[in-house]
Amino acid sequence: MPAPRRKAETTDTATADDRQPVSLGLLDNLLGYRLRRAQLSVFQDFLIVMKDFDLRPAQFSVLAIIAANPGLKQSRVSEALGINRANFVALLDELEQRKLARRAPAPGDRRSNALFLTPKGEGFLKDAYRHLVVQHEKRVETVLGSADKQQLLGLLEKLTALA
Amino acid sequence: MPAPRRKAETTDTATADDRQPVSLGLLDNLLGYRLRRAQLSVFQDFLIVMKDFDLRPAQFSVLAIIAANPGLKQSRVSEALGINRANFVALLDELEQRKLARRAPAPGDRRSNALFLTPKGEGFLKDAYRHLVVQHEKRVETVLGSADKQQLLGLLEKLTALA
Repeated sequence: MPAPRRKAETTDTATADDRQPVSLGLLDNLLGYRLRRAQLSVFQDFLIVMKDFDLRPAQFSVLAIIAANPGLKQSRVSEALGINRANFVALLDELEQRKLARRAPAPGDRRSNALFLTPKGEGFLKDAYRHLVVQHEKRVETVLGSADKQQLLGLLEKLTALA
Repeated sequence: MPAPRRKAETTDTATADDRQPVSLGLLDNLLGYRLRRAQLSVFQDFLIVMKDFDLRPAQFSVLAIIAANPGLKQSRVSEALGINRANFVALLDELEQRKLARRAPAPGDRRSNALFLTPKGEGFLKDAYRHLVVQHEKRVETVLGSADKQQLLGLLEKLTALA
């Protein structure tokens, strides 16, 4: 995904053509837009690095939450990750088909499922995480520097207070 | 969307229940995850603030790019924003139905559309941007502080070098 660049100037009557770089206009000042671009870049790198594991960020996050909270109810996992119900069911179906995770009846709540990793899922997550840290997070730190990364994490934490 | 909190400790044999907070596990260390959470928080706030305008972040970004690059080809707008073709067509249909944007034949390229805002779209974008800056970006700056915001923008810029 090419980063859009500012073009010199444009008037209301001018017609943009193929030779000029795209101007960001009002977007240039908006934190939300810049945040989204950076997030897409990082996720894009994640996808490239995790290609051999056939793993998307959302799938990784579900496996990690289940691993850290074995037996947690399906609804609480999706809620914790902010994934809507329909998307979450599809995502979980896929992880079950790959025999990485399994649903079991939740004790004391027959309408609900408790989630677990399979032994295969545990090994897979461990390998995927090791690969991710070595290949992806290291690349992030190369671009940012370790001190900048810590600073960025702190600033992002403040933003989650918004909603 | 509630921010997940760390729980004290969990063992592999423990079963998570409804009373314990959800542990982030491996996710806690991953910049991509933290970036995504912050981005979702900011977009959530955008949606709340822009409710009366019935405007989502992606719609706003398309209007802003068209306003800054009148007559730009459809494919270049979607490319600049990293929105895939199918989603972009649906998004643009909606903006056309609301009479905010219009497609016109691109000069010298009959298979392609050039995009423009309507006069109504120009007024709408102006009002929406004013409202957004006053209500949303000000809230972001309240949470972050102005110096932190500038610092954050710089750090995010570095990340976009990844992909």
